Amino acid sequence: MRIAFDAMGGDHAPQAVIDGVLQAAKTWPDTEFVLLGTEESVRPVLEATGMDNVSIHPVTEWIEAAEEPVRAVRRKKDSSLVVGCQMVKEGAADAFISAGNTGALMAAGLLITGRIQGIDRPALAPVFPTVTGKGMLVLDVGANPDAKAEHLKQYALMGSIFAEKVLEYDTPRVGLLNIGTEEGKGTSLTKEAYRMIQELPVHFSGNVEARDVLNGVCDVLVCDGFSGNILLKNTEGVAKTFFDRLKQEFTRTFINKLAAAVLKPGLKRFASSMDYKEHGGAPLLGLVRPVIKAHGSSDARAVFNAVRQARLFVDRGVIKRISEELERG
Amino acid sequence: MRIAFDAMGGDHAPQAVIDGVLQAAKTWPDTEFVLLGTEESVRPVLEATGMDNVSIHPVTEWIEAAEEPVRAVRRKKDSSLVVGCQMVKEGAADAFISAGNTGALMAAGLLITGRIQGIDRPALAPVFPTVTGKGMLVLDVGANPDAKAEHLKQYALMGSIFAEKVLEYDTPRVGLLNIGTEEGKGTSLTKEAYRMIQELPVHFSGNVEARDVLNGVCDVLVCDGFSGNILLKNTEGVAKTFFDRLKQEFTRTFINKLAAAVLKPGLKRFASSMDYKEHGGAPLLGLVRPVIKAHGSSDARAVFNAVRQARLFVDRGVIKRISEELERG
Repeated sequence: MRIAFDAMGGDHAPQAVIDGVLQAAKTWPDTEFVLLGTEESVRPVLEATGMDNVSIHPVTEWIEAAEEPVRAVRRKKDSSLVVGCQMVKEGAADAFISAGNTGALMAAGLLITGRIQGIDRPALAPVFPTVTGKGMLVLDVGANPDAKAEHLKQYALMGSIFAEKVLEYDTPRVGLLNIGTEEGKGTSLTKEAYRMIQELPVHFSGNVEARDVLNGVCDVLVCDGFSGNILLKNTEGVAKTFFDRLKQEFTRTFINKLAAAVLKPGLKRFASSMDYKEHGGAPLLGLVRPVIKAHGSSDARAVFNAVRQARLFVDRGVIKRISEELERG
Repeated sequence: MRIAFDAMGGDHAPQAVIDGVLQAAKTWPDTEFVLLGTEESVRPVLEATGMDNVSIHPVTEWIEAAEEPVRAVRRKKDSSLVVGCQMVKEGAADAFISAGNTGALMAAGLLITGRIQGIDRPALAPVFPTVTGKGMLVLDVGANPDAKAEHLKQYALMGSIFAEKVLEYDTPRVGLLNIGTEEGKGTSLTKEAYRMIQELPVHFSGNVEARDVLNGVCDVLVCDGFSGNILLKNTEGVAKTFFDRLKQEFTRTFINKLAAAVLKPGLKRFASSMDYKEHGGAPLLGLVRPVIKAHGSSDARAVFNAVRQARLFVDRGVIKRISEELERG
């Protein structure tokens, strides 16, 4: 198996990507790793370590986090992100992982790698942390803000297959994000999607309210890209507010610092259980090849976990299984 | 001024409603308070206290929290919630406050009290807590899940007026909930709404991302009822998860309990700053008369704060001002 990496993408690139890849290369000596980056930034680090199953595919450009996605993808043909999507399409790599510009990766995935026949819109599908520790696949969180019911139906099918094969959940419970749990609640979009998902060969557990997401009431949560993005960013925002305020209180006085020292280990365990890094990256489900978006602030550990995910994504034939189900349906 | 109350609505009714009303009746002796409830449940409590400016309007039924809203409103003509909406419509009361079934209050507001001319859909507009302590009016959070751009434009106008007159914000900053801050982001709905809000006589500060809501980046946040409901319930859910987990850690061992005792006062201040009860209820903006939804779990303090809000809502002529702006536009 051959996995390609965008060495130039993410807040801590290229160092975090290289560190994560080297760690993965040691763990899986049967896997080849290809780093896409400029000679200057990648070569020196690699030469110092010299591992057999890690190589470089040099590029001359990269896409910045703030660039307008579609324009950047069209113009920067030799950027790490565009070349990665091209490589995976041509079979020069079995999977591509990038922690770079999310919009650009979605655009390049769609325009260059291409969609599975029968899928109208790919979905960005991160794993949300849950209090159960198990996590919940949420799709879509922004690849397709103006979703139609047919798209939500496709997300339910793809999400269920990915959750079973890669996240290794037995009979994943599929929920539909809604503003009430009863059937018939919500918008015309959710009402129509509800009916469509009911007819799929998935374990549909009905509507799920936003207040129950962290409790892990389902394993796969289906939603339009606009609501999913609101859910993702609001969860991040509230969690950050909370931890910031906790830190303030913990350091406000000397006696507070002492008290905080006692409580810290337990709270650290909680914080780490709420950490996306444990759950790998977010696949772009619906593309003909495995493309994974790692979080922008990925560290080496997050990159390593994305590799683990990519290996299962490839090995377990997720895309083939999605195609088969689409043909059957 | 005369304020009517649904004494039968809310998790702690009728006791919490009566307690809150009695407290308000002492604070504002110039205001008349009318409790809508069954004789058995309201009379004994009132007789014990005997205040001049509190009276009873007896009803024979009430709507339960779990009842199907529209059906309940149509059938239970003598319920506290329906009679309240009727009284405020006829001018027998200047404002109506209920902590009961949210859907039923929205239905009764629309079907019985009625809309302001020029407003297509009323919006439910709670005040979200923010870290600044100031709070942010969010509308709509569920009265109208399938919103159109024209509705969002109306919310912006109504929200800005309410925030200025009742929440007493100088030149309220109006934001549009979106999945990116740049103009041109989002769905066809948010793009169209963006253009329309730009032309209103409000201080429009552009798109706001869900991760910035608690930071108080604007004073009035406009969104469709589906996304607003997701935002509201997710914020509640994440906050609850955190406080639950904190409580667990604080009581896990004896030494943890000691350490927690030191930190508790500061964290209590934080928890109370994040508490909706401080900010009163959620007006149903767009009705011809002031109708306010108090939180289902309202205690006496929340009821008291809803009264303060209702008084300003009436005194400052919010509805007249909305009508004038609509005629002008």
